[in-house]
Amino acid sequence: MSGWLCIVGLGPGDPSQVTPEVNQALANATDVLGYIPYVARVTPRPGLVLHASDNREELDRARMALGLAAQGGRVVVVSSGDPGVFAMAAAVFEVMEGRPDWQALDVRVLPGITAMLAAAARAGAPLGHDFCVINLSDNLKPVELIKNRVRAAVTTDMAMAFYNPRSASRPHTLERVFQVLRAACEPERLLLFARAVSTPQEQLTWVSLSEATPDMADMRTLVIVGSSTTRRVGRFVYTPRSVS
Amino acid sequence: MSGWLCIVGLGPGDPSQVTPEVNQALANATDVLGYIPYVARVTPRPGLVLHASDNREELDRARMALGLAAQGGRVVVVSSGDPGVFAMAAAVFEVMEGRPDWQALDVRVLPGITAMLAAAARAGAPLGHDFCVINLSDNLKPVELIKNRVRAAVTTDMAMAFYNPRSASRPHTLERVFQVLRAACEPERLLLFARAVSTPQEQLTWVSLSEATPDMADMRTLVIVGSSTTRRVGRFVYTPRSVS
Repeated sequence: MSGWLCIVGLGPGDPSQVTPEVNQALANATDVLGYIPYVARVTPRPGLVLHASDNREELDRARMALGLAAQGGRVVVVSSGDPGVFAMAAAVFEVMEGRPDWQALDVRVLPGITAMLAAAARAGAPLGHDFCVINLSDNLKPVELIKNRVRAAVTTDMAMAFYNPRSASRPHTLERVFQVLRAACEPERLLLFARAVSTPQEQLTWVSLSEATPDMADMRTLVIVGSSTTRRVGRFVYTPRSVS
Repeated sequence: MSGWLCIVGLGPGDPSQVTPEVNQALANATDVLGYIPYVARVTPRPGLVLHASDNREELDRARMALGLAAQGGRVVVVSSGDPGVFAMAAAVFEVMEGRPDWQALDVRVLPGITAMLAAAARAGAPLGHDFCVINLSDNLKPVELIKNRVRAAVTTDMAMAFYNPRSASRPHTLERVFQVLRAACEPERLLLFARAVSTPQEQLTWVSLSEATPDMADMRTLVIVGSSTTRRVGRFVYTPRSVS
């Protein structure tokens, strides 16, 4: 058995932000699995089977990937951004936990440029001081926990990056998070809505908290909330390294 | 004037984790500036001037980089990891803030694989759920603020990534952070000490909080503190996506 599984990050969208080691894994693969729009970013070639699936099927996809590797396949699971940040890596280890026979497989995680780093870079350096990273999807946790985490970050004046801020099935979470922010922050607090960074659809919008509305975000948007020190300089926004 | 400045991330160390856009910027540069060991990762060539400086000279380096770009230079400032996470990008914007004449320059930030993503990938998926990112260097902020942020993260059960956990000039911060953790977490809480990830000196060590000592870290170490749900599966460690 010489199969292997690589769980890789394709970065935010632009091929120039995909690392060479990820491209190498794809070049050696027999099978690529992932959510439909991410698999669409992989160039087809003879000898490579592309398995695209819906975004609610993470555990099935992880199971299939481990199974193919166990049978000798050279398998790549693709995520957008980084596979370890709210993406496929945790799903693969969750499946592996229930299958001790798969724990000895050759499994590697290859990092990628996650959305918050790509968005922050485009905007300046809003994550230049301490920050929190929070998945606003409440599929897997209660909304009260999300609000408590946001409150903890605000109370200790950390910037925040929100992944999955909004979807059709849960349109109200972001508004509830904004309510937490409005209760604790000055109205001038800066928020970034960064949509589809590094793609032709890229759109970056900085607004103050008083101007922010939930419909500024969709599932392709990464939201950054500045700390109290985050500020504009020319066309950029940054958070100073020092607190004073 | 056709000068430009790119503030780039070289990733954790392995050339296979440097993005193509960063390599392209380096290929087009006339000047590269950075901390000595990071500049040493750039291949010399005719027409490229390497300006290596000490790690306490961020603002001077930023000033020189902007000045060279203003004079028409094609300038790259290199950081390890990602330039926006406790690295050179914030220092450049800090200098730019005091120099309005430099705010119209062609300045771009090119993201990189930051240490926490590289370390997490090597270990499994410990950052697969919400987490905080905290710079333990107290050069630019009081240690009490660091402790408050750690306490806030623990109270709301977020994992944590600690950058710059220890240096010769401030050997005691990490022990004080461990005291905060011991007061609030179970002794079995998992901690990762990831040193020099992706280099020949790479060393990854998972220990429980009760076993952790500050001398397990140095300035080349990234520390990850798991949440209460972070656990081992085979040789990996991951944090489940769900809280239950």
